[in-house]
Order: sequence, then structure tokens, then C-alpha cells
Amino acid sequence: MSFPFISPLVATDLDTSPIVLAGVLLSLVVIFLASKLGGEAAKRLDFPPVLGELMAGLVIGISALHLVVFPVSGAQAADSLIMTALQWINHLEPDTLTKIYESQSEVVKVLAELGVIILLFEIGLESDVRQLKEVGPQAIAVAMTGLLAPLILGTAGLMWFFHLPAIPAVFAGAALTATSIGITSKVLSELGQLQSREGQIIVGAAVIDDVLGIIVLAVVASLAKTGEVDVRHVCFLIVGATTFLAGSIILGSVFNKTFVKLAEGLKTRGNIVIPALGFAFFMAFLGSALQLEAILGAFAAGLVLDESNARLQLEELLKPIADLLVPIFFVTVGAEADLTILNPTVPENRAGLLIAGFLIVIAIFTKLISGWTVFGIPGINRLAIGWGMVPRGEVGLVFAGIGAATGALDKPLEVGIILMVIFTTFLAPPFLRSAFSAQPPTSGETTPAIAGEP
Amino acid sequence: MSFPFISPLVATDLDTSPIVLAGVLLSLVVIFLASKLGGEAAKRLDFPPVLGELMAGLVIGISALHLVVFPVSGAQAADSLIMTALQWINHLEPDTLTKIYESQSEVVKVLAELGVIILLFEIGLESDVRQLKEVGPQAIAVAMTGLLAPLILGTAGLMWFFHLPAIPAVFAGAALTATSIGITSKVLSELGQLQSREGQIIVGAAVIDDVLGIIVLAVVASLAKTGEVDVRHVCFLIVGATTFLAGSIILGSVFNKTFVKLAEGLKTRGNIVIPALGFAFFMAFLGSALQLEAILGAFAAGLVLDESNARLQLEELLKPIADLLVPIFFVTVGAEADLTILNPTVPENRAGLLIAGFLIVIAIFTKLISGWTVFGIPGINRLAIGWGMVPRGEVGLVFAGIGAATGALDKPLEVGIILMVIFTTFLAPPFLRSAFSAQPPTSGETTPAIAGEP
Repeated sequence: MSFPFISPLVATDLDTSPIVLAGVLLSLVVIFLASKLGGEAAKRLDFPPVLGELMAGLVIGISALHLVVFPVSGAQAADSLIMTALQWINHLEPDTLTKIYESQSEVVKVLAELGVIILLFEIGLESDVRQLKEVGPQAIAVAMTGLLAPLILGTAGLMWFFHLPAIPAVFAGAALTATSIGITSKVLSELGQLQSREGQIIVGAAVIDDVLGIIVLAVVASLAKTGEVDVRHVCFLIVGATTFLAGSIILGSVFNKTFVKLAEGLKTRGNIVIPALGFAFFMAFLGSALQLEAILGAFAAGLVLDESNARLQLEELLKPIADLLVPIFFVTVGAEADLTILNPTVPENRAGLLIAGFLIVIAIFTKLISGWTVFGIPGINRLAIGWGMVPRGEVGLVFAGIGAATGALDKPLEVGIILMVIFTTFLAPPFLRSAFSAQPPTSGETTPAIAGEP
Repeated sequence: MSFPFISPLVATDLDTSPIVLAGVLLSLVVIFLASKLGGEAAKRLDFPPVLGELMAGLVIGISALHLVVFPVSGAQAADSLIMTALQWINHLEPDTLTKIYESQSEVVKVLAELGVIILLFEIGLESDVRQLKEVGPQAIAVAMTGLLAPLILGTAGLMWFFHLPAIPAVFAGAALTATSIGITSKVLSELGQLQSREGQIIVGAAVIDDVLGIIVLAVVASLAKTGEVDVRHVCFLIVGATTFLAGSIILGSVFNKTFVKLAEGLKTRGNIVIPALGFAFFMAFLGSALQLEAILGAFAAGLVLDESNARLQLEELLKPIADLLVPIFFVTVGAEADLTILNPTVPENRAGLLIAGFLIVIAIFTKLISGWTVFGIPGINRLAIGWGMVPRGEVGLVFAGIGAATGALDKPLEVGIILMVIFTTFLAPPFLRSAFSAQPPTSGETTPAIAGEP
């Protein structure tokens, strides 16, 4: 319904949206191609497909082919091959191209975010609230250990071995805390381990970790900025997060029936998908409006609809939508990761590489420890739980970005955090898989007697 | 994976993307709610649901509630209730808010465009290439009449009755030509008439009309700008369009088998959806790169995969994706339509209303005529074909926008064209429906003997 590139004659009055659309379409084609090539290659090599998608993202992104790049990685419009193609097709001025590049990047980013929102909605639907409640104490233990151990060891190590001042050390230590629930839950789902007891502990702990990560970030960001902690803000976050997640679970038992009745009463196309995703998007909005995260809201929405009778049908309908949008998230995570900071010929990178090495060891070691804090479930696969908590995803990148922006982090420390994120994200999936192969999971059943089988 | 609203402390370094995401989520919730309320109400009143979605768009858009508005309608960030809510939640500066509003609108617009791209891909899949070829001559007759009649009668009428100069008259006449394939095919699909012979003539004619509309626009835009026609450009468009559509159909028989083999060979999730939509998006990109339209490319992609064995499975998988994205298109079309130009107390509007009345009569009359040019099929429902060609959708709005930008159209003429678009878009669905009720369609079978039944 839009007329792109109408004629060179009206180029000055050019409406750029058709070109933005063309850029988005081409980016999606490249992302889809990469996700399938990477995913299929990983599958054939017996790795989790999501690892292949991340790798393929690396290949098409800022580290290599420069097909899909983002302003957040410091890339300009001219660095993007897709933008260069659009410029050539449409004879664009550099200024116009920059505007189109920014809009296009924003759209692809939002599509990726919608992807991870739908992924977490799916994970919430597939999670069993009763089982989550049952493994709640263990998940809390894992989350708390996984928060405190890297924070304390990371901060102390940076101060002792690298002689860093307290504030940057605390900031970097805090960047080691939060687990990437998106990557970890996707791998679990691909391994068919989401409903195992290990899987539910990991998901529960990752959710708690995510909330704690937001609180830690608020604390260290205010520490870095003003030297003191904004106690009111932190209390607001804690109360908000607790109310939100607990409220969703309680609401669940009531809203389930309403939802099914509503879906059954609708007579037009999309009678299940639209109310379900409308609800998921609303909860995601609520999560972000409460200064939490959109994905937490989506996960809560999934938990709410979890026990509804329409669940199986809904899961079936969500699959193609998730298949379409979720890869956009993982490929762009890879595309944003800049491996050129691994180049040791740049002096700045060398200091960063050293710090990175230390952070990576701490990041993996402390999360593996957390698996050993699980109590009361004999024979549980502690190694799998530990590896499940390892990937930091872009949560760590947010820390690095804010730390650099507030001046708390210098360049080597920022590089170190980014490398830590890349390594934990890429290492965790294969190790998580092998941990599950080495020791098949305990049953997802609630009877402790059969735990530790076979 | 993003930290919205991290803390007021870092507000100056604020990354706006989480707020853009929040705005998109809230807009989508409102759009979904509106689409279901409107669609269900229309269904219960026995109107096509898409009419309800358009109406609901009017209610939430620039004409009434101001929940979802777009810069293209002249609305500022402060005019949007959703933006006002975001400003209140996040304590945003007006400048930041404007930036967020523009990004958010761009994202919603692209989602709407992806919706209509997927709709046209679906329509292409459901269309039968052989039947389209069979009714090709009739579709060409309908399209040519539907192009020439409004162009000639509209231009002549504006010159005679309204004493307009030639250039603006030709421009407004040209704005009467192109049918909105999106709206018309959606109504056909809802009525279950897409595969009827009438349906296939309408779709074929609308596609041809769309291509011709692009060529007409190129001609009148260059006429308005330089006083002469850029013959080379027009030839390029004609050759490009013909090659593209014919090439797609020929390619179809080859590519079908490749596609099925590819999909069967893939072992990861999304093995059908991702290659299919990757192809559709690539063709949509190609359509727009050839200076045609993205939706033409998507339609051609659907035709190519039409005869593949995976078609039925693909149609099933596309449904939830279409159910999610297609309503965004129709609701935003409604949300962008500004009914305040109907207010006759504004002097400028009065001239516009008069011209609009004339244009609406011509717009409907000339397209109804086109139904009577169908030859060789006794008993065909000519009225239905005519009404199928009536809705102009936003193609006409593009004419109005470019005409105003090049100075060819003054305000009353622009208002007249916009009103013509709104009226034809909203009037056509119920009349198309009643035309089909009054005379049930001829069979979609290829045997002329049973045409005209019952």
C-alpha cells in the first residue's frame, strides 16, 4: 500500500518509510537465512541450535560480514552492507541514509524484543506453577548464591589482583550476577529439559536472578553516580517485583477461566492468539512500567494462562509466531557482539583481555557453585543447574553500557565485561547439553522417591 | 533483556529503546483490543469483520480517542494518549518524547506493513495460478476500465464543473484509479469468495490495477513537476512489473519442488515458516527495489509456492502469524483516517466536501461499470466484481500526499481525495457482501457450462 522510490523527481519530498520497510525486509531475510544455516549446522554437529543462531549472528554482524549492524555497537550507516545496498538502489543522501539506518535498526531491535517476549511467554506457559512453587526454595538458594558469589569474588578479585578502586570493582562484580533467562530457557527447551526438575529450578532461579540483577543495577548505578544508595528506589523495586510476580500467580487461578470463556465467545479469526498475546504484551508493558523488565511480564503472563484448558491449543498456535520472531532475537544478540575487541595488537584490548580472563573464570566458577547449593533433592544434576545459570546474555552488556556512560568503568574494564558476556553466552549451551547427557535428569514428578533416576 | 527506566539517576544517558518498546507494546494492546471489539461487533451485525477493524481504528485514532496516532496525520507526540502516559511514567523531556513517538510510530507502521505483506502472501497462496491465468483477459478488461473510466471522467468533471486547471484535475483523476488490494482481498477471504471466479477476477484485476496505479502515479508526478512525462522511467516500470509478475509465475513451477525439498531437509523448529516467509520477504524487498510495491512481491511469492505440496501445511502455520499482524494493518488504516475534515464549519472543508462528493460518485460509479466489461462468462456476478474494485485504501492517500507535496493539489482537492478514499474504503465491504448475498457466485470450476449457477 505504499509507493517506494516513486520517482527521482520527488526525491526531495521523499517519504522514507518505504525504504525503511525495504531495509527491514532485507535484514529479516538475512537474519532468517543466518538462523537456519547456523541452527541446522549446530543441530547436525549435535550442538543446541540456538548456539548456531548466535554464531550465525556473529558472522553476519559487526564482527565479520557487516550485513546486520546496530548503532549500539558503534556502527555507522555506511558500515552496514544492507544500508549501502539501499543507498545504491535509491540514490540516497548520507543524511537520509543515517535516518533510515536508525529507524531500521530500531524496528529490527523491537522485533527481536518481541521475539524474546514471546519466547518467555512460551516458557511461562510450559512452566508448571505448582512445580515452580515446589522447587522455589532451591531456586532461591541457587539465585542468591549465583548473585552473591560472583559479586563478592569478582569485586574482591578486581581490587586485589588488579588494584582497581572500589566503585568500578563493585560495578564489574555486579555485571557478573544476572543470568540470561532467554538463552538458558531456549537451550533447556531445545534439550527437552524445560519440565525436568533441573529445568524448573534453572528457570525459577533465572527469573529471581533477573529481578535481583535489576535491583543490584539500581544500587550500583546510584552508588557510581552519587556515592550513596537510593534506598527508596531500591525498596520500590523490591516491593514492585514481589507484588508483580506473586500477584500474577495468584491472579492465574481466577483469570484462566475468564480467558477460556473469552476465547470461546469470540467468533472471528485470531480468537485465541489475539487475546493471549494482547494479555502477554500488556503484562510485558506492565513489567516495564513498574521499572522491571518486559520479559518478566511476559513470563508472568505465561504462568497465568498456564493452567487454562486452552493452553495446549495456544502453545500450538504460538509455535509459528515464535519460530518467526525468536530467531531474530538470538541472531541480533550475536550480530551485536563485537569480536574485534579480541584483537591483542590493540594495547587497550590487552588489559581488557587480562581482566576478561579473570572475569570469565569467576563468572563460570561461581555459577557452577550455585548448583551445589540445591538441598533436599538427592541425585539432582547439580552440574546442569550450574551451567544453566552461566550465560549472561545482554544483561551484562547493559551493565557495561551504563557503567561506561556513568564513567564508573574505564575502557579495559568495559571490554572485559563484554568479553565475559560473549564467552559465557557461547560456552554455556554446549556444556549445559553435555551435563544433561552425562547424567540424565531426575524426573519432573513430585515424588522425591524417584528422584535420582535412572 | 533490556532494562527500562533504570533509574532517574541515569536519565541523561537514557537509552530510549526500552521506552520505545513499552510504547509499541501498549499500542499493540490497544490495537488488538480495538480489532477484536470492532471485528466481533461487525460479525454479530453481519458485516465483514474487517469493516469493524477499520471502524475501531477510527475510534482509537486521530478522529476520536487519540490513543494510536501517527506523525503522517499531522499528530504530535503530545496528541497521543499513549505517549502522554509514557511521559508521565518516565518523566520524559518533550524532545525525548518526540524522538520516542517517532520511533514508536515507525515500528507500528512497519508491523502494519508486515501484516499486509503476510496477508498478500496468504492471498497469493490461496489463489490458483491456473484459474488466474484463465480469467486473465477478464481481469485485464476490468482493470483497464477501472483505470481509464475514473481517470477520464474524474479529470473531465473536475475541469468542467469545478473549473480546475488541467494538472490538478489529472492528478485527482489519477488518485481515483488504484484499487486497494489489501482491503478487497481480505473481505473476499472473509466472505469465503477468494476462490470463486468473481474473487479471482477481482484479485487479478486489483493486482494489475496496483501496477497500473504505480505507472500512472509516475506519469502524473513527473507531469506535475516538470510539465512533461519521463518516458524512460515509465517504460522501466512497465517492463519491470511485467517481468516480475510473469517471471514469478514461470519460476513457480521450478521453485515449488526446491522449496518442499528444502523444508523437508531442515531439522530445526520453523523449518517451513522461516524459508517460506524468508522467500516472501525477499520477494517483497525485490518488488520494492524494482520500484514496484512490497505487497506485489509478497503476492507473487504466494503464487510461486501455491502449487507446492507443503501449501496446506504452510497455510495452517501462517494463520496465527496473520491473525497477529494483519489486524495491525487495518486498525492503523482506520486510525490514520482523519474524519475531522468532515466538519463543515471550517470554510476550507466546505469546498473539499463538495469536491469529495463528486469524487466519491465518480469513484464508485466507474468501478461498478468495470464489472460490466467482463466478457465470455454468462451469469457472472458483475455487481460483486464492481464493488470489489471500489475500495481505494491508502493508495489514494499516497496520491494525495505526493500531490500536496509537489504543489499540484490545493487543500480542498487534497481533502476531497482523502474523503473519497475513506468513503470508498468503508462503503465497499458491506456492499461487496450484499452483492454476493443477492447473487451467489458462479462456481470456481473451470467448466464454463456451470457458470451462472444457481
